[in-house]
Amino acid sequence: MNDNKKSIIKILKNSEGNPVSGQEIGEKLGITRAMVWKYVRALRREGYDIRSSPKTGYILDSCPDKIDPDELRGILKTSLIGNDIRYHLDLDSTNNTAREIAPRVPEGTVIVAETQRSGRGRMGTEWQSVPGGIWFSLILKPSIPLENLSKITLIAGIAVANALRGIGVDAHIKWPNDVLVKGKKICGILTEVSAEVEKVDHVILGIGINANIKLSELKDGIRKNSTSIANEVGKSVNRTVFLASLLYEMEQEYIRFKTRQFTEILDEWISLSDTIGKDVRVTTPNVIIEGKAVGITEKGALVVLDKNNKKHEIIAGNCRYSDQLLK
Amino acid sequence: MNDNKKSIIKILKNSEGNPVSGQEIGEKLGITRAMVWKYVRALRREGYDIRSSPKTGYILDSCPDKIDPDELRGILKTSLIGNDIRYHLDLDSTNNTAREIAPRVPEGTVIVAETQRSGRGRMGTEWQSVPGGIWFSLILKPSIPLENLSKITLIAGIAVANALRGIGVDAHIKWPNDVLVKGKKICGILTEVSAEVEKVDHVILGIGINANIKLSELKDGIRKNSTSIANEVGKSVNRTVFLASLLYEMEQEYIRFKTRQFTEILDEWISLSDTIGKDVRVTTPNVIIEGKAVGITEKGALVVLDKNNKKHEIIAGNCRYSDQLLK
Repeated sequence: MNDNKKSIIKILKNSEGNPVSGQEIGEKLGITRAMVWKYVRALRREGYDIRSSPKTGYILDSCPDKIDPDELRGILKTSLIGNDIRYHLDLDSTNNTAREIAPRVPEGTVIVAETQRSGRGRMGTEWQSVPGGIWFSLILKPSIPLENLSKITLIAGIAVANALRGIGVDAHIKWPNDVLVKGKKICGILTEVSAEVEKVDHVILGIGINANIKLSELKDGIRKNSTSIANEVGKSVNRTVFLASLLYEMEQEYIRFKTRQFTEILDEWISLSDTIGKDVRVTTPNVIIEGKAVGITEKGALVVLDKNNKKHEIIAGNCRYSDQLLK
Repeated sequence: MNDNKKSIIKILKNSEGNPVSGQEIGEKLGITRAMVWKYVRALRREGYDIRSSPKTGYILDSCPDKIDPDELRGILKTSLIGNDIRYHLDLDSTNNTAREIAPRVPEGTVIVAETQRSGRGRMGTEWQSVPGGIWFSLILKPSIPLENLSKITLIAGIAVANALRGIGVDAHIKWPNDVLVKGKKICGILTEVSAEVEKVDHVILGIGINANIKLSELKDGIRKNSTSIANEVGKSVNRTVFLASLLYEMEQEYIRFKTRQFTEILDEWISLSDTIGKDVRVTTPNVIIEGKAVGITEKGALVVLDKNNKKHEIIAGNCRYSDQLLK
């Protein structure tokens, strides 16, 4: 958005519902009243609800439901994550864009889009990214061996769950990387990596949160297992503010990951887990394992005890709850 | 190289040392004698040693020592690897180019360069890529979980060792990914990956072979532990022919990897190994382990037995032989 349009929004927001004349705005910006009127019309086309009367002036009734990258930068309380925020109205996929730019941008760069045309879930599945969600990717460059990659997924799950709990949403984590509310998915996390065996080059955390999406816009098979923040708290959430708090939680977890024992993070993950204690069926490319999820290893593998009391450590796979399989 | 230059080389090669007149070449290509002369001068600048006499014609005395991508395509006996060969005189790094193009090129694409300005070894170390070596990257897209990545490094080591043995070089593999002759490095392999935890997207095998390099061009610290094919067999190798045979070996191993039990590959790896049975010190980001290398796991981890008879499985690390540490 150009500076004059931004300034007009700011002036109208500051007047808190009182009309501001085109004359006054024009003087502040050093432009003519006719130019002010031109910008107001442009802003209306972008979804800003601006009333005008020739006698009193302009009043801002509502802003479009967009993530505001300038506001986000302003309220962000982090020192690393989000130092570089790249906002797009629409992208193919934020993870794809992140992959392209990752080698030449600093750690902590965030790519956010209002909608994605080809949002992806794990293992190439489709992720529906309709308007009203928070669809973003975060680029991290931790100095860890590849075998520790799953740990990054775990801390992302904790950060999302804590951010949701901060606004009163009772979020739990389903291994490895879904965040659920009362068994329904509110967030998915796709972890992608570029690495040598010995050393991760960069990790891309693709995080999709059903913030204010209309559940009716989701496909049948997906809708019945999905929920949104708006659905849970009964009203729309300010996505800019929520994203700022999530990036803050993410940074806190990342600092903890770098400076503390990982067992501390595992303990928190277990306390937020929806999976531990449940009967599960985990599908991997090689085997299907059924049993009770009893724990998680230092490296993020789910520990499943099968009916013969044999322990299985599963680093990656698709987990389903047995009680849902029976339905 | 343009078609006319290629044709001139071909004509002169076919005449097997007998002179061919500019008139005759010109007639075959449908160009003037003056144009033939222009091309000959250009070829001389590229390193072709072409004699000429006004009375008899042109004779090709020698070709520059370059990998010839057209010849390579012609002699290649593979059906997947090398279907797309991208040849460069000089690159930043073949792995960097491979990373950029990997998402949109088919599996089996090969990027080869005569020299690299910033060739890389494992963990960001420098790899000296002086003229005369074979510096290339191979893009593979196996459907494997990330935890099986090390297996790809193992099959690459086997392929290189077998290609070298095929020309009489007594090559052995040092875990995880160096190929040695009598303890000196002749080849390094850098495995890079782009992946989800569950599924590898693509693997880039960066392979550097000291084929005909002058060992005197290597830095002091590197030179004393290095050798070259030319040094081992006493004469320069035809790099185009050797690369074709290596890509063939690579394809055979890759097919075996996809269709057979991995234990079969492990058995071959062990038979080629320089490391099993040796006293080693392996350095990982977290620990240093000393002991005897006694085997390799299904996933490619080195098994080390320490002095307390405790077994350690090390998936990634820097391995040194204890007898070399003592020197």
